Amino acid sequence: MTNEFAFSDPEIAGVYRAIHQRRDMRHFRPGKIKTEILHKLLDAAHHAPSVGLMQPWRFIRITSDTVRKSIYDLVQEERTLTAHALGERESEFLRLKVEGILQCGELLVAGLCDHRERFIFGRRTLPEMDLASVACAIQNLWLAARAEGLGMGWVSIFDPVKLAKLLNMPAGAKPIAILCLGYVDEFYKNPMLVEEGWAKERPLPELMMENTWIDTE
Amino acid sequence: MTNEFAFSDPEIAGVYRAIHQRRDMRHFRPGKIKTEILHKLLDAAHHAPSVGLMQPWRFIRITSDTVRKSIYDLVQEERTLTAHALGERESEFLRLKVEGILQCGELLVAGLCDHRERFIFGRRTLPEMDLASVACAIQNLWLAARAEGLGMGWVSIFDPVKLAKLLNMPAGAKPIAILCLGYVDEFYKNPMLVEEGWAKERPLPELMMENTWIDTE
Repeated sequence: MTNEFAFSDPEIAGVYRAIHQRRDMRHFRPGKIKTEILHKLLDAAHHAPSVGLMQPWRFIRITSDTVRKSIYDLVQEERTLTAHALGERESEFLRLKVEGILQCGELLVAGLCDHRERFIFGRRTLPEMDLASVACAIQNLWLAARAEGLGMGWVSIFDPVKLAKLLNMPAGAKPIAILCLGYVDEFYKNPMLVEEGWAKERPLPELMMENTWIDTE
Repeated sequence: MTNEFAFSDPEIAGVYRAIHQRRDMRHFRPGKIKTEILHKLLDAAHHAPSVGLMQPWRFIRITSDTVRKSIYDLVQEERTLTAHALGERESEFLRLKVEGILQCGELLVAGLCDHRERFIFGRRTLPEMDLASVACAIQNLWLAARAEGLGMGWVSIFDPVKLAKLLNMPAGAKPIAILCLGYVDEFYKNPMLVEEGWAKERPLPELMMENTWIDTE
């Protein structure tokens, strides 16, 4: 059965290639991203699905070096606390590069808007669907960036209360991602945490079930 | 500056086309999806980023008509409660088609695994990053499906406690999406909620800021 809505073979290949070659980047080389490309990437994010069409995403572009440095400092602070919380893996964790905030060409903060309680559609029992929508927007941005040959890293090692305060976010709004975007010398062949020996990937069949839950531990 | 990591033009076009033409589908036509394609879509989901490489996603394929019908019933139940909670928009909401559970060729439930508290990396201050990872996986699946000419709908109108019980999920695990996947007669030109007059989309510039929060209301 042919499917009239299927993309052309190179277009399909592009989608899978972006999905498979996307990496969570922490290493960047200098270089500003063209305004036109940055707009295309943000527009891709903005075309994400959102629960009840609430479009809960907000993007703060960081162009001030002072604010960038303050964000970096917040991440360093939480990095130390996370390392400590990891206990026996503390020193192993501290050897990992967990962000590229000062090196990346473009720094963005993605967050949830305030006044989200107004939106009930698809959220009465699952209010966290607003976060899911922002995550989909970020994944769009990530895949589009990969296609354009740009790397992105999602940093979640920060205290959201402190970052919200730094960016003058109102009560009810919340930062959920520091996004480092820019040119790279190379894309990691495998996820960096695999290459560094931090974690192993599990194969898909272990995480698939049929009709009922099975223990995956 | 040429970028050696950029994809070919048709590949880039495929990525943007998937992002722009993806729709949250509620209308399906019958037809089973080939096993090979289904595997490619699930494999695309499985290549999502995940915080600390925790891979918190679990996918339950629903092949039992009895289970499918029970899921449908749960959604109908919550649809009524959501409609009531919407107050003055109750009857308007009830005119919308909010799911295609009984029509779609393939039904999946996506959820969060149990024992997530073991994972601290990137989650000490933002434990909800596990949900963000599953959302990225679902977005991958969605985009890959669109490229293959298949529609998908993410239904979040259900009580997660009741759906967890139906699927024998253990304490700590949580269903977050009922995914309807299948052939369609056509893709909506615009988001269905826009076409039906439920909501208007806001343009990207209204949701962008620089260095500091601005009120977007």
